[in-house]
Amino acid sequence: MTEFFNVMPPAQALETLFRRWTVAVQSEMVPTAEALGRVTAGPVRSPISLPAFPRSTVDGYAVRAADTVGASEGLPAYLTIVGEVPMGQRATLTVGRGQAAIVHTGGMIPEGADAVVMVERTHRLDERTLEVLRAVAVGENVIQVGEDVQAGEEILPAGHRLRPQDVGGLLGVGITQVAVARRPVVAIIATGDEVVPPDREPGPGQVRDINSYTAEAMVRRAGGIPRLMGIVPDDFEALLERARQGLAQADMLVLSAGSSVSVRDMTSEVINRLGAPGVLVHGLSIRPGKPTILALCDGKPVFGLPGNPVSAMVAFELVVTPALWRLQGTTPPEKRRVKARLLRNLSSVAGREDYVQVRLVEREGELWADPIFGKSNLIFTLVRADGVVRVPLDATGIPAGEEVEVVLHEG
Amino acid sequence: MTEFFNVMPPAQALETLFRRWTVAVQSEMVPTAEALGRVTAGPVRSPISLPAFPRSTVDGYAVRAADTVGASEGLPAYLTIVGEVPMGQRATLTVGRGQAAIVHTGGMIPEGADAVVMVERTHRLDERTLEVLRAVAVGENVIQVGEDVQAGEEILPAGHRLRPQDVGGLLGVGITQVAVARRPVVAIIATGDEVVPPDREPGPGQVRDINSYTAEAMVRRAGGIPRLMGIVPDDFEALLERARQGLAQADMLVLSAGSSVSVRDMTSEVINRLGAPGVLVHGLSIRPGKPTILALCDGKPVFGLPGNPVSAMVAFELVVTPALWRLQGTTPPEKRRVKARLLRNLSSVAGREDYVQVRLVEREGELWADPIFGKSNLIFTLVRADGVVRVPLDATGIPAGEEVEVVLHEG
Repeated sequence: MTEFFNVMPPAQALETLFRRWTVAVQSEMVPTAEALGRVTAGPVRSPISLPAFPRSTVDGYAVRAADTVGASEGLPAYLTIVGEVPMGQRATLTVGRGQAAIVHTGGMIPEGADAVVMVERTHRLDERTLEVLRAVAVGENVIQVGEDVQAGEEILPAGHRLRPQDVGGLLGVGITQVAVARRPVVAIIATGDEVVPPDREPGPGQVRDINSYTAEAMVRRAGGIPRLMGIVPDDFEALLERARQGLAQADMLVLSAGSSVSVRDMTSEVINRLGAPGVLVHGLSIRPGKPTILALCDGKPVFGLPGNPVSAMVAFELVVTPALWRLQGTTPPEKRRVKARLLRNLSSVAGREDYVQVRLVEREGELWADPIFGKSNLIFTLVRADGVVRVPLDATGIPAGEEVEVVLHEG
Repeated sequence: MTEFFNVMPPAQALETLFRRWTVAVQSEMVPTAEALGRVTAGPVRSPISLPAFPRSTVDGYAVRAADTVGASEGLPAYLTIVGEVPMGQRATLTVGRGQAAIVHTGGMIPEGADAVVMVERTHRLDERTLEVLRAVAVGENVIQVGEDVQAGEEILPAGHRLRPQDVGGLLGVGITQVAVARRPVVAIIATGDEVVPPDREPGPGQVRDINSYTAEAMVRRAGGIPRLMGIVPDDFEALLERARQGLAQADMLVLSAGSSVSVRDMTSEVINRLGAPGVLVHGLSIRPGKPTILALCDGKPVFGLPGNPVSAMVAFELVVTPALWRLQGTTPPEKRRVKARLLRNLSSVAGREDYVQVRLVEREGELWADPIFGKSNLIFTLVRADGVVRVPLDATGIPAGEEVEVVLHEG
């Protein structure tokens, strides 16, 4: 058997791939309003100052602060109302000494005024006469030009996943198109003489394809565009042909490599034929997910995942997801984690990371992680799981009752 | 002023709405392969048992366990190889006493056999003769029929957001179409004489529309379909007309209600004209976000959000997002939270929840939450923020140095 000659931990495997793999993030312009979740391809600077004119933060009267000095309920200042600043228009009037102008929240501060008195702090005697019941300082209740953002200021760094507020901020300064990383295209191939499409009734000895679809969903979740290349029988030439087709039209290739040793060996030979340098890592020191291949073929990453659906998903998350985000110039989003106490003993062996699926249960107000044991990491192990507990490389197990960190399976 | 006569905390406001609002989750069938992130409309049961036939979990030899009793390296059991089970086909041969059949990982266990010996525990003497170097128990290295999932078993509950493994599991049992909650359609209207579309150069006193787009992104993130209805000037009839149009084609209406008191009053009057019972909550005991309206108009929720973009987003998250998920038969996904120490004093008043935007900074290995202060919750406050700290209703502030929980702004 050729396999597992250089089994290594996932972090080291990724480093091995990333060291050889030079990524130039490719950018494209997209409408900002549709860019939620996309990753900025470079730093973004504001073309303008916001606000572009001094604005009132309250409903009230624009005044000269000096005219209100010492004003109080007992000794109001008296000002003459010279007009109203309409919303959405230039304030054409000027506020002189002893004068005030009606201004609404968000309205422009007229020339001459340097503060706004809230309407609640005034009393209007008649059409033209205002009592000011409290002094205001210069700038009070006014947003100055550029107070939100300055022209030329960097508003977003490169490699930033756009959130709703970022979309709003960009549009607020008139950036209606934004340069983001192109979504990586990932070709996905399932292999196996026994595998049939999900809409087909499996015959005796046949099973439905699961891995193409979990991989498709994982690619979407990591910002990529999946291209399903179908199911290929365990035949060297057929697999090589399909793999070449897939890689030609994609930025990355993911093969679910079949489960038997002979098929896995074939997969690594196929990958080596796809381009140089070929297979870089053959085997991860994890369970499940050990028979995972990381390769680089003429500048494009190729991953051989185990045939077992759970192994395939665990390995995908550890090595394919980071590669997908790297192509977009960033790292994977963090997942939500909770602390829980382990309900049963977990055994492991030193030199291997175990990823144990758990269900979360609450007992007497405490959160417990209940390991889902199963013979062979069946897909419903993952469906039933709320999250996963990692038993580190150097541990030989974790005793029941111990506090563990559960990385949650969400979204 | 008619406003704020019944200001209440967000939780109570939502309860007030939800008590009056009867939701019947509407379902639709979608291809399972495209259902990532959608919410199950009802419990899902497996139509079949998985696996449908007994499968080997290893590469090796299918045997009768009884024939291996006592086998060891020193005293092997000798079996006759009667053939090979091809992948993806019925095992046509039968394993009798003293016999073995070659079987691959995932292959079907042939009739007569009840266990599999791993290839590593055997030694092949010639074409037909196998040495078994270790005994196996009945069922060893075999997945029995239905061991992954049983026919008729509930595999997913109602109200479950589909994850990649759920998509895989459903397809694995042949469920290629799944009943999920219909995505709620949300009409979004921006109001204000001063508001112009982002692609327009604002004139003096004008500002670009932000709220339509942050709301659009928030609706998408909560599984909904946004329908932007444009910008309406501060005119009662125009707003009523547009709001009616919007609500007629949507499940929910969100108005960003302008910032001045007179405009807000107008908004609540418009909402009351849209249907009964109309406005249920006028004002939340939060900052920012106080001038928020929750209404129910002829069975559809209507929200009036503040004109200030930060206030609008805070209020959206607290009251619109839960309503959107409720329409899909579930609750909002939890956000990631981190503990950090407060870098500066936060002051608040009792009887009000404060939502303070913070940046996270690391100092000497410790995580600190640095509050972003600003005159009026400008949009770039939110763009610069990593998360938000909530000062509870009954607190009058939080002193610097105290540990706080930061709810992160992500995705």
